[in-house]
Amino acid sequence: MATSNVANGNGSSETKGKTITCKAAVAHGPGEPFVVEQILVHPPEKMEVRIKILYTSICHTDLSGWKGECEPQRAYPRIFGHEASGVVESVGKGVSDIKEKDIVVLIFNGECGECVYCKCEKTNMCEKFGVDPMKKLMRDGTSRFSTIDGKPIFHFLNTSTFTEYTVVDSGCVVKVNPQETLCLKNLTMLSCGVSTGIGAAWNTANVHAGSSVAVFGLGAVGLAVAEGARARGASKIIGVDINPDKFITAKTMGITDLINPTDEEKPVYERIREMTGGGGVDYSFECTGNLNVLRDAFLSVHEGWGLTVLLGIQSSPKLLPIHPMELFDGRRIEGSIFGGFKGKSQLPNLATECMQGAIKLDKFITHELPFEEINKAFDLLIDGKSLRCLLHL
Amino acid sequence: MATSNVANGNGSSETKGKTITCKAAVAHGPGEPFVVEQILVHPPEKMEVRIKILYTSICHTDLSGWKGECEPQRAYPRIFGHEASGVVESVGKGVSDIKEKDIVVLIFNGECGECVYCKCEKTNMCEKFGVDPMKKLMRDGTSRFSTIDGKPIFHFLNTSTFTEYTVVDSGCVVKVNPQETLCLKNLTMLSCGVSTGIGAAWNTANVHAGSSVAVFGLGAVGLAVAEGARARGASKIIGVDINPDKFITAKTMGITDLINPTDEEKPVYERIREMTGGGGVDYSFECTGNLNVLRDAFLSVHEGWGLTVLLGIQSSPKLLPIHPMELFDGRRIEGSIFGGFKGKSQLPNLATECMQGAIKLDKFITHELPFEEINKAFDLLIDGKSLRCLLHL
Repeated sequence: MATSNVANGNGSSETKGKTITCKAAVAHGPGEPFVVEQILVHPPEKMEVRIKILYTSICHTDLSGWKGECEPQRAYPRIFGHEASGVVESVGKGVSDIKEKDIVVLIFNGECGECVYCKCEKTNMCEKFGVDPMKKLMRDGTSRFSTIDGKPIFHFLNTSTFTEYTVVDSGCVVKVNPQETLCLKNLTMLSCGVSTGIGAAWNTANVHAGSSVAVFGLGAVGLAVAEGARARGASKIIGVDINPDKFITAKTMGITDLINPTDEEKPVYERIREMTGGGGVDYSFECTGNLNVLRDAFLSVHEGWGLTVLLGIQSSPKLLPIHPMELFDGRRIEGSIFGGFKGKSQLPNLATECMQGAIKLDKFITHELPFEEINKAFDLLIDGKSLRCLLHL
Repeated sequence: MATSNVANGNGSSETKGKTITCKAAVAHGPGEPFVVEQILVHPPEKMEVRIKILYTSICHTDLSGWKGECEPQRAYPRIFGHEASGVVESVGKGVSDIKEKDIVVLIFNGECGECVYCKCEKTNMCEKFGVDPMKKLMRDGTSRFSTIDGKPIFHFLNTSTFTEYTVVDSGCVVKVNPQETLCLKNLTMLSCGVSTGIGAAWNTANVHAGSSVAVFGLGAVGLAVAEGARARGASKIIGVDINPDKFITAKTMGITDLINPTDEEKPVYERIREMTGGGGVDYSFECTGNLNVLRDAFLSVHEGWGLTVLLGIQSSPKLLPIHPMELFDGRRIEGSIFGGFKGKSQLPNLATECMQGAIKLDKFITHELPFEEINKAFDLLIDGKSLRCLLHL
């Protein structure tokens, strides 16, 4: 079955309701190089959407998923990837808010709109489409992908975007304003990491003008926090990273001061207190997934009102390195998932704000490669050389 | 020097500027019975106030201080006590907001009004008059108390109220509306424990109408939380305690449902989830100081928005029994000191609200005794028989 007639972004009566044969980057085992091969993508079922992916990028969660870090039971072959944009090829029964040819951004943290969480303004969790790296099938317990010889291929994070076509629940699809589709490459950044950072600053911490901020880890998420804090008018944004190669980019993305812990004799939190008149910052953001860094981030905020926001994935089984009595000093700590954004409701506005200049999304795209070079894109991320490498499909 | 002419609540030109000889309940060693003996109380220095205590009561912090739990270096003889009300005998230089004969409530968590914390609306900490059980002298490094033969007696928690007269910083003295002084016995309850509980519900958690609440530990602080939640219109207030003797009183003070963990086969948090439609309560309050209970309290709140407020003093060196990744489930945990109230600014309004019926303070006074029977009052608290025993001076 030819796919050329949908490659230009048109829904197609030729493919609708039928299985599509296309290319995908399939992982066959933990940490094994991706194999770009032909697969079958089955039609969307009830409340599902089939999308032709135009751009996808790679986040650290793909990296840890690919390495099998959060997957005691092996689920291979599997299609990873959760940051992407594309065009709707067809929709399943019951889908009313998305239609063929719509330009969309995919989100792993979905919004069904009906559960107790979606109806509560205090959270962006969703009962149906929560974050579960262990989840590997659609909600009916089956897969929409299979190998050419018919074996199922597993899904990942409600999305699976390292493929020319994917099928996702409509709750994980955000329709983008047609006026903004010219910038679809940039909008792909809002699919996960950059929204996570901006939202942590805007929604979770609610950074205020004139405040001081420390960001631990200057990858894409950390720099998105910095950009979000800058857009809110924070006056001091201290970036902390052990890789000085990141400092040049960081200086152009909100960061006003830099600390390389390997250059410091005293603990980082003490340096940060010195740099803020002795008291510490108003907000700190942990974007590394390292428990010692988490402790530094916690101690770097001001007693009485300082807030530490956790964004990094902590894979160690160790508990929070905080004594309960330390919470009486008025320091707080909170986790943030997808920046607290309710994706379907709030991403369209965020996209508009970014297109109007609040956040320069293009600065996060440091590399672009054809989809076939996905293994090279992974190397760029592993080596700390890229913020985001955009893969073109 | 006679004290009889100030015993009626008048400031006195006879005592002003002079050392007063009066009775105090002095602790001579950790856990040793108090000795009611004559002591000397020196005049107030700059920005200090000397107060004739009319009523004092006992809080668990006095108990742990008296046992020497938070005092590696011994500081005896010492005058404990931090919940009290009384009348101002005289003021030191520079005190302008308090004058002789004012009726006042004492607070351990003071408010200097000038520091970075006092000027920040997000905290009730104070740089000068914070909570420090180790602090045993006035800010100039000397004591205002001495034994009859001239040896210094140590202070406690910025207050030291187990004495007929005490000297405290003016930042720890709250002037009460004269119309409310008829109820001074009741207002003594606002000095620490009851304000701590009410404020944890009102300020720290901001309990909303129709919400669900779990209170772990049904002493005075826990029941004040329950009363605060009731006053805010919480619809379900679950009380948890292993002492069923507390259940009868609890039922009259906001608690709608009761759990005795010793009667349960499953974990308490599972019972609480069952009692709230599966999801858990909106707010939980840890008032026991037990780490296992803290874990139960944390797991008993709803994913996405549930908040656990810590009030109990955790004397174990163990860290928070929470994994960092659990914070991504949207459960939050915060400490609360003195209920988040800025004492001098906010207690007068709280007193008015209570006098108007928002909270029935008299229900917290379960026993009354003459000051000389202070050891009996301690036994009542240790045996879990009293909420508050009011000592009359």
